[in-house]
Amino acid sequence: MPDPLRLYVDAQFTSPYAMSVFVALHEKQLDFDLSPVDLGALEHRAAGFSQLSLTQRVPTLVHGNFSLSESSAITEYIDETFAQGTALYPAEPRARARARQLQAWLRSDLMPIRQERSTEVIFYGPASAPLSAVAHQSAKTLFQVAQALLPDDAENLFGEWSIADVDLALMLNRLVMNGDAVPQRLASYADRQWQRPSVQSWVALERPLR
Amino acid sequence: MPDPLRLYVDAQFTSPYAMSVFVALHEKQLDFDLSPVDLGALEHRAAGFSQLSLTQRVPTLVHGNFSLSESSAITEYIDETFAQGTALYPAEPRARARARQLQAWLRSDLMPIRQERSTEVIFYGPASAPLSAVAHQSAKTLFQVAQALLPDDAENLFGEWSIADVDLALMLNRLVMNGDAVPQRLASYADRQWQRPSVQSWVALERPLR
Ligand SMILES: [Ca+2]
Ligand SMILES: [Ca+2]
Ligand SMILES: [Ca+2]
Ligand SMILES: [Ca+2]
Repeated sequence: MPDPLRLYVDAQFTSPYAMSVFVALHEKQLDFDLSPVDLGALEHRAAGFSQLSLTQRVPTLVHGNFSLSESSAITEYIDETFAQGTALYPAEPRARARARQLQAWLRSDLMPIRQERSTEVIFYGPASAPLSAVAHQSAKTLFQVAQALLPDDAENLFGEWSIADVDLALMLNRLVMNGDAVPQRLASYADRQWQRPSVQSWVALERPLR
Repeated sequence: MPDPLRLYVDAQFTSPYAMSVFVALHEKQLDFDLSPVDLGALEHRAAGFSQLSLTQRVPTLVHGNFSLSESSAITEYIDETFAQGTALYPAEPRARARARQLQAWLRSDLMPIRQERSTEVIFYGPASAPLSAVAHQSAKTLFQVAQALLPDDAENLFGEWSIADVDLALMLNRLVMNGDAVPQRLASYADRQWQRPSVQSWVALERPLR
């Protein structure tokens, strides 16, 4: 019997990083248990979860007696550990490097978009305030990078689908689903990515009322 | 003749992410050219660099006709592309996953330490203000994580040296070199890591006056 897998995520199912790992496990056709952690009630600071996650963050994946946090480290681990299902990263070294670049960039830059268009916009409903000037500047950079990386008429960034498509589509959908202006080619890409069954499994999770 | 390597870094040589890639290239015994980018003069937004880096960030590595940004993506690429020299990541899958977790965490959390103890503390001289309450809390988390990951009497996190040792030692040295209180075992670890010749090559770079 294989080691069981358990994924700890935020109880609202709005963390883009939790979503990325959830989608990865689905793409790999792995059975796993889902454990919501109520961050509002500080459950992530309680001794049990704190020992598992080390850094008190979600997502955390527990695989047998090994627990791991940080979503990009988790998706790399899943891809290396399980051969079944869909590959999460491109096989070609430079495409794989580019996917890692994009994952790291989306997690460390574009703060104005992440703040003014939290993922509640996607999973609960639109925000009312227009984008600030700095958020507009961040959006411009996001569009330039996405336009440069996404080939014309391509469904995915790197030929075959990869986990970087999920992360980029999520970032674009912070704007698309709020009704902010997004270049049509990028909005169409984000829409198509959103229809992927593994993504729709996350979207369909039953969320607590706000 | 192999494709040439060029590394773009900040002109003050204070970026911890530029340092991580610089050290990686040294550990791999690779010849490369170093190109300082004056961020204060907005050289990273000029057309030439902007096209190379895509996201207008340092570090950026150019390898032949391929250019790549985001330090952790770059060190992964270097490790996969060049077999020579010292391995940058642990070979054992779970240790490698832990190294990636640590890299991702050090780049996305601990913001109060990164703000109140910028790397100018290390490369130019100590800061005068004491740590705020939130920075103390961040330091406490940092120490807990480092204590949990570093085995007793160990020189490195994962047996053999890895690039994660550089990143953790840099984060600890923001505090150690400023005279802030750090548990002795962790301060000794950071001191030893700092003596590594590849790290000392970065420390010894001639910096512009402030
Ligand atoms: Ca995380
Ligand atoms: Ca519901
Ligand atoms: Ca970078
Ligand atoms: Ca000098």
